[in-house]
Amino acid sequence: MLPIDPTPTPAIPASPWSPPYLLYLGNAPDHLAAKTARGLAHWRPQWCVGQFRGSECKTTLGLPDLDFRQAVEAGAKTMIVGVANAGGVMDAEVVRHVVAALDAGMNIGSGLHERLTSHPEIVAAAERNARFLFDARQAPALPVGNGRRRAGLRLLAVGTDCSVGKMYTTLAIERELRSRGVRADFRATGQTGIFIAGAGVPIDAVVADFISGAAEWISPARDDGGWDLIEGQGSLFHPSYAGVSLGLLHGAQADALVLCHEPGRAHMRGLPHYPVPDLKTCLEANLEAARLTNPDVVAVGVAVNTSQAGGADNAARICKDIEDLLGLPCQDPVGMGVARIADRLQACFAN
Amino acid sequence: MLPIDPTPTPAIPASPWSPPYLLYLGNAPDHLAAKTARGLAHWRPQWCVGQFRGSECKTTLGLPDLDFRQAVEAGAKTMIVGVANAGGVMDAEVVRHVVAALDAGMNIGSGLHERLTSHPEIVAAAERNARFLFDARQAPALPVGNGRRRAGLRLLAVGTDCSVGKMYTTLAIERELRSRGVRADFRATGQTGIFIAGAGVPIDAVVADFISGAAEWISPARDDGGWDLIEGQGSLFHPSYAGVSLGLLHGAQADALVLCHEPGRAHMRGLPHYPVPDLKTCLEANLEAARLTNPDVVAVGVAVNTSQAGGADNAARICKDIEDLLGLPCQDPVGMGVARIADRLQACFAN
Repeated sequence: MLPIDPTPTPAIPASPWSPPYLLYLGNAPDHLAAKTARGLAHWRPQWCVGQFRGSECKTTLGLPDLDFRQAVEAGAKTMIVGVANAGGVMDAEVVRHVVAALDAGMNIGSGLHERLTSHPEIVAAAERNARFLFDARQAPALPVGNGRRRAGLRLLAVGTDCSVGKMYTTLAIERELRSRGVRADFRATGQTGIFIAGAGVPIDAVVADFISGAAEWISPARDDGGWDLIEGQGSLFHPSYAGVSLGLLHGAQADALVLCHEPGRAHMRGLPHYPVPDLKTCLEANLEAARLTNPDVVAVGVAVNTSQAGGADNAARICKDIEDLLGLPCQDPVGMGVARIADRLQACFAN
Repeated sequence: MLPIDPTPTPAIPASPWSPPYLLYLGNAPDHLAAKTARGLAHWRPQWCVGQFRGSECKTTLGLPDLDFRQAVEAGAKTMIVGVANAGGVMDAEVVRHVVAALDAGMNIGSGLHERLTSHPEIVAAAERNARFLFDARQAPALPVGNGRRRAGLRLLAVGTDCSVGKMYTTLAIERELRSRGVRADFRATGQTGIFIAGAGVPIDAVVADFISGAAEWISPARDDGGWDLIEGQGSLFHPSYAGVSLGLLHGAQADALVLCHEPGRAHMRGLPHYPVPDLKTCLEANLEAARLTNPDVVAVGVAVNTSQAGGADNAARICKDIEDLLGLPCQDPVGMGVARIADRLQACFAN
């Protein structure tokens, strides 16, 4: 393999809502409500100049508290509404703050279901300040998937269930590969990932006919020897969302899969009547489906979330059992990193 | 099984765009462009009072040619724009005709990609006449699929490819079962089917997260011993649309599958680089995926389109070969009917 320049941080994308960011937390009642902002602060700290918190905010990202003017002075170009209110809607205070941020000179990006453009005050403020509004949950115009083999190397995170750490795993692999001097770019399919990547498609929000087309669009042909690391969504075994997972699997044309899993989960997320599939069945079903568009796909590892496993010894035992079962490296990206998964990936694609 | 009243024709639905219909052909350049109108005239002749053709129309449905006033006098309540122009858009003449039909007192249903409501003249005419506009390709608000087992019997048509006769097959089974006194209702997932059923969801147009929810919504629990016969879409083996097919398969909770196939097709529709899957692999993959939401699913037959097979002898031989391969009745619904498939269905669900 030719030597590749290390690229430890991504180039700032040329989107109109580019970083640096001010992270808006509003009156987030707890850590979970600020999930999008937290993901950004964790994975792109170099892009985040500060946070804005309302008087009743119950969480912090540990960033400097800045008002809108201070944020602009600190270099912020875009404010990210990175907080989930009940129902994904903006209350009157959020709308007022967004207008003030626009008047201070920032663009706005939002991961809420409710669109920025559905508020006339926000649209008017954007127009009078010539600023840009970006709703991360609104899908762009997309082509239908064509299934044609394209150049480049692609990894996709798949899961036994929803919310098992697919985004975290993919970003951890990006960080690990980059630290080794391998070109690697996270490709986002959800709203938090889109702000982290600076681009992407909210794949659960595209029209059904365009799912695989969206996956093709976010990971186009590349010939620099680097990897596209595609954020997975849902699970082939989740009866609510499996269509999204299959379209993503076909569009990704993945060369490599990483299986993500949370041990000990009693049932599929939100569906008490559905058990979590066993790892072997789940991995084989994903490989079988992936072969339609890439017959050479291989699995390179398993990423587990052992935060509920009751300590490091239990976590190590869980990983050992999975390694014995599947013959693949198994790690918790949070507690153990992903070095051994990356080793396997590089060994499988050494030429 | 309890005796069931025969229901040879469906009740006219209570939608605001209800039949009787005038079928608008405009200046359709050929038979294929009038596919939606042709499907309606074939499957619901009792709902179609006539056709309207432009001066350059190159096809006919064999119905009386009526102008808008004559159609209303003949009882038409809704005009169906059942013609596909290039790009699915309405030219100025179509818009003029739609306005005239509204002024004559009809509601309008359209299967075009471009929405009726995107034309201010059409919206104004609907408002001044208090008529209803229905865009069949616009999906209604839908729930996320929940995967809970629901009462009733459901059959789903699945396919080796797109456009292999899934709608025709499902409607033929509806007709056959009704002729035997079995309650059976076609459930539509595409625009032509929606006009035929008088209700339904254009499943390829729903947002990706709601595919299985849409399938659940169109075939709710029923306890009258009758069948919901669900129109399939796409194929698990079509890399552009398999996500739609899988979500539909999960949401349908099908008790019975019918596999639809066109022998001799050189490759997947629109994708010269993808071969058509073999029937056994395709059927087994569909059964395996369907078991996630209904472990008891069975296959009851194969419907083939032998129109390109070169005659009745070839068609019979093709069916015989498939029967030997899969152990299921195989018929061409157009040339042979679906009696043997219906026999198998009834035999499998005799209690």
